[in-house]
Amino acid sequence: MSSAPIDKPFTLAGRTFASRLLIGTGKYKDLEQTRLAIEASGAEIVTVAVRRTNIGQNPGEPNLLEVIDPARYTILPNTAGCYNAEEAVRTCRLARELLDGHKLVKLEVLADQKTLFPNVIETLKAAEVLVKDGFDVMVYTSDDPIIARQLAETGCIAVMPLAGLIGTGLGICNPYNLRIILEEAKVPVLVDAGVGTASDATIAMELGCEAVLMNSAIAHAQNPVLMARAMQHAIEAGRLAYLAGRMPKKLYASASSPLEGLIR
Amino acid sequence: MSSAPIDKPFTLAGRTFASRLLIGTGKYKDLEQTRLAIEASGAEIVTVAVRRTNIGQNPGEPNLLEVIDPARYTILPNTAGCYNAEEAVRTCRLARELLDGHKLVKLEVLADQKTLFPNVIETLKAAEVLVKDGFDVMVYTSDDPIIARQLAETGCIAVMPLAGLIGTGLGICNPYNLRIILEEAKVPVLVDAGVGTASDATIAMELGCEAVLMNSAIAHAQNPVLMARAMQHAIEAGRLAYLAGRMPKKLYASASSPLEGLIR
Amino acid sequence: MSSAPIDKPFTLAGRTFASRLLIGTGKYKDLEQTRLAIEASGAEIVTVAVRRTNIGQNPGEPNLLEVIDPARYTILPNTAGCYNAEEAVRTCRLARELLDGHKLVKLEVLADQKTLFPNVIETLKAAEVLVKDGFDVMVYTSDDPIIARQLAETGCIAVMPLAGLIGTGLGICNPYNLRIILEEAKVPVLVDAGVGTASDATIAMELGCEAVLMNSAIAHAQNPVLMARAMQHAIEAGRLAYLAGRMPKKLYASASSPLEGLIR
Amino acid sequence: MSSAPIDKPFTLAGRTFASRLLIGTGKYKDLEQTRLAIEASGAEIVTVAVRRTNIGQNPGEPNLLEVIDPARYTILPNTAGCYNAEEAVRTCRLARELLDGHKLVKLEVLADQKTLFPNVIETLKAAEVLVKDGFDVMVYTSDDPIIARQLAETGCIAVMPLAGLIGTGLGICNPYNLRIILEEAKVPVLVDAGVGTASDATIAMELGCEAVLMNSAIAHAQNPVLMARAMQHAIEAGRLAYLAGRMPKKLYASASSPLEGLIR
Repeated sequence: MSSAPIDKPFTLAGRTFASRLLIGTGKYKDLEQTRLAIEASGAEIVTVAVRRTNIGQNPGEPNLLEVIDPARYTILPNTAGCYNAEEAVRTCRLARELLDGHKLVKLEVLADQKTLFPNVIETLKAAEVLVKDGFDVMVYTSDDPIIARQLAETGCIAVMPLAGLIGTGLGICNPYNLRIILEEAKVPVLVDAGVGTASDATIAMELGCEAVLMNSAIAHAQNPVLMARAMQHAIEAGRLAYLAGRMPKKLYASASSPLEGLIR
Repeated sequence: MSSAPIDKPFTLAGRTFASRLLIGTGKYKDLEQTRLAIEASGAEIVTVAVRRTNIGQNPGEPNLLEVIDPARYTILPNTAGCYNAEEAVRTCRLARELLDGHKLVKLEVLADQKTLFPNVIETLKAAEVLVKDGFDVMVYTSDDPIIARQLAETGCIAVMPLAGLIGTGLGICNPYNLRIILEEAKVPVLVDAGVGTASDATIAMELGCEAVLMNSAIAHAQNPVLMARAMQHAIEAGRLAYLAGRMPKKLYASASSPLEGLIR
Repeated sequence: MSSAPIDKPFTLAGRTFASRLLIGTGKYKDLEQTRLAIEASGAEIVTVAVRRTNIGQNPGEPNLLEVIDPARYTILPNTAGCYNAEEAVRTCRLARELLDGHKLVKLEVLADQKTLFPNVIETLKAAEVLVKDGFDVMVYTSDDPIIARQLAETGCIAVMPLAGLIGTGLGICNPYNLRIILEEAKVPVLVDAGVGTASDATIAMELGCEAVLMNSAIAHAQNPVLMARAMQHAIEAGRLAYLAGRMPKKLYASASSPLEGLIR
Repeated sequence: MSSAPIDKPFTLAGRTFASRLLIGTGKYKDLEQTRLAIEASGAEIVTVAVRRTNIGQNPGEPNLLEVIDPARYTILPNTAGCYNAEEAVRTCRLARELLDGHKLVKLEVLADQKTLFPNVIETLKAAEVLVKDGFDVMVYTSDDPIIARQLAETGCIAVMPLAGLIGTGLGICNPYNLRIILEEAKVPVLVDAGVGTASDATIAMELGCEAVLMNSAIAHAQNPVLMARAMQHAIEAGRLAYLAGRMPKKLYASASSPLEGLIR
C-alpha cells in the first residue's frame, strides 16, 4: 500500500520519485548481492562511489551499470574516497563525462579515514565550485545547522546531514540538531549515514526528513536482501507516521498535560 | 511485499496469522473510523473491551460486530475496565457466551484508573481460574520478567508485557526487561500498550517480539487511518530487520570492536 | 559543604542521618577494602547480607562488626540470598537475635540466581509477617508502582525500587515508573540496585529519591575507594540540584516554549 | 574532601586550578546573586562577556570586577555577542587593554541569535589571528571532531565543545562525538554550554573532560546559589568516577559478557 495519494511527491532536480529510500552499492559480497538488495529495497536512486566502482573508466572490467540499469535507476555518482575539495570536484567531472553529461551528484568530502567524519570546510569549497559548474549537488555534511544552511545557500539542491558517522550503525545520535536543520530547511533534507537498523530509518522519517540514504545498514546486515526489504517498509512507516501526526507523550494516560522534557 | 516466505508463521491457539499487528477498537471518533483504521492496518486480530462495547449484550444498540465481521477478523474480547480477578473472570465468561463458546480472550486487570498500571497479583489469580476454565488466555502484564514467567507457567498462551503504560505513547520504556522476558519466553511474547508512533512498534519487533497490540497510537493520532497504515509497515519493517540481523554498532567505522555499553 | 541547613533531614525509623548514601559490604577484595570504601563514602547506614557475612553466627571467624563499628554505623541486616518469604523472615529474626533486638532490616526476596530480579509476591508475603512481628522494614522491590504502594500500605517504613537489576550497572532503566512511585509515595523512596557510576546516583536524587543504596558500583569499580568518594559527591550533587530546581529544557535558547516530549 | 592527592592537576596557560568548574557571570538577578553563586560554586575561573559587562570600559557604572576580585579569581573574558571573526578579535583586544595585558580569553563566534550555534568557520579565522597575536585562546565550538582538531592545531590552548546549544539545558546531546574529540585531544577538552542540571556535568566529567563551563544551568535554576553548590559536587563526582573506573554494564549480573551496544 503506497502513501502516494496523500503525500506530496518527493522531487529532486525536477524528477519525482515514489521511493524515499536511496541506497549505496558498496560493501556487498558481490555484484549479484548488490543487485538483489537494490531490487528488494524498492529504491529508485542508487549511489555509486566513482573512485571505487567501475562505471566505464576501466573498460574490460565488470561495470556496475550492467547490473544497475541507468534506464531503470537514477544513478547518483558520489565522491566517496575524496579528502579535499579538489579531488571531489575532479571526481564529479569524471562522473559527468562517463555518464554523458549527467548533472546530479552526491558530494562528500571526508576529513580522514579513521572517523570518516565530513570535512565541512572542504565540502563548502567544493559545493561552490560544483554549483557554479552546473551540477545538481546533493551534499553530505555533519549535523551542524549553520553549515547545512550555508550549503543550501550555496545552491545545493539537497542537504544530507549524517545521523551518525558512516559505518557506525548508531542511528540518530543528535535528534536536536536534526530538528533545527529541518525547521530551517529551504531545500530537501535527507539523512545520510549512521542508520543501523529499520527503526533508525523510521525515526529519521518521523522527524520530517524527505528521504534517507544508507549503505552499511543493508550491506552489513547478516541478510542484506531481507534488510533491504525491511528498510523499504521502515521508510514508508516513518513517512506515514509523520503525515499522520503522532499522539502526545504523557507520564500516564490521565495526566493532564503532555510530558515535558524534564526526564532524561 | 510480505515476509511470509522466509518467516515462520505467527500462531496463536492453533490459528495462523499473516499480520503481526493486533489492534483495539476503542477511542475512535465513531464506528466508521474504527472500521477504516482496522482495514488500513491489515490487522487480523481485533480486540474488544467487553465492558465498554456492545457485542450483543445490549440488543437494539449499535453492535461492533456489524462493523467488524467475526468471519473476517479474529475477535479478541478483553477485560478492560476490570480492577480485580473476579470482575475479569466474569467478563470473560460473558464474552464466551455472547460469542458462542469463543475461548480466546485477552486478560487485563488494572490497579487503578489513574495510572492504568496492571495489578499483577490479581492478574495471576484470574489467569489461573481462566486457564482451568478452558480459556485460551493472552495476558497483559507489566515488564516484570518473573511475573511474565509465572503467567506462562500458569498456562497462558501468550504473554503481553507493556512497553509503557496504556495511553502514554512513551514507547519501550525499559528494553532491558523486555529483552530478559524474550530470552526466557516459552510462549509468544507480544508488546501491548505504550506504543506512540511507528518507530516504537518497529523497535518492539526488532527486539524479537512475536507481534504488537496497540490502540491509542492509532486512535489518538491526528489521522488514525494514515497511522494505521504506518503501523502495518512498521511491524513488517521490524520483523524483517529482526530476521535479517542488524549490523553491529561502532563508535566509528574503523573501530576494532563493537561499541561496549559504556556510553549512555 | 553540607546541604544540611537548607534540607529537611533524612529520617528512618526515628533516626536522622546526614548522609543519603547507603552502601553494601559484599563483593570487596577483603575486609580492609570494605572498611576503607565505607569510610570514603561517608555512609552512615551499612547493609550486611546475614546469610553471607559473619556478624556473630560463626564464632571464631572474622566478624564484620569488628570492622564496621555498630556504635558508629547503623547496621542494616539484609536478606540477600533468600528466595522465598519464609527464608527471608527467618533471616531477619536471626539478625535481630545476633544484634540484640535490632529492628531495622532490609527485606529482599529474589526470584532466581540468574537475573536476581525481585519476587514481588514473596516479598509482599514476607513484608506482612515482618511488619506484624515488629520489624522496621525497608523493602527492596521492582519499579512496579502498584507493588510499591502495596508494600507501603503493609507498613514498610521505606520502599526501595531498583534502578536496574542487581549487579548490572545499567543506571535508571525506567525513570517513568520511578517518577510515578515518587509522585505517590507516602514513605521514603530510596533507589536500590542498578547504579553503575556517579551520574546514575545523581540522576536518582534529582528525580526526588530520599537516598540511594548501592554495592557493586563501588565494589566493582577499578578503584573502589575512589568511587566511594565519587558517590558521596554524586548524592550531594543530586540532592542539591533537586532542591535548587533545574532550568527547563529547550530546543534552542530563544525557543518560546519548553521542550515537549516529542523527541526521543 | 578533595580529589587533589590522586589526580593530576588541571592546568591552563601555566596556571594550576583546584576546581574544574568554570562559570559565567551573565543572566543573574543582580551582581549580589552573581557573587554568591560564584562563591558557592567554588569556581576559580570566571568568564565575563566583555560586550555585555562593564569591566572598566564604562567608567562610573557598576564594575563587575568590584564584585569578582581579579586577585582571587582568574577572569576569562569572552566574546559573547560577536557574530564574526573581526568582532571577536576586536573584543579580545579590548579585554586585554582593560585587564592590563591579560592574555587568556575565551573565543566564541556565534552564527545567529536564534540558535546561538557556533559559526565554526569564523571561529577558526578568529582563532588564527588571536593565537598569532599572542593570546592564550580557549575556544568554544560545536562537537565536530574535525573542527576541534583544527582549532587545537591552530594553537588554541583548550577546546570547548558544546554539550548542547547555549541556554537549552539539554545535557550531552551527542556523547559519541564528544568521545571521539576526547580520544584524539592533544589539548584540554572542556564541555561548554548545554548543561542543564548536576548529572549533566557529572556525565561530562565521567567521559573524561578536563573541566566544564556553564552559566544558564546555575543562573536559571530556581535557586542559583544552591545549584552552584550542586555543580561543585557534580564536577567532583564525575572526575572521581572517571579516575576510579566504572564497573561494566551487563544485562543481568550473571551474564557472561558486558552489554554490547545492541539495545538502544
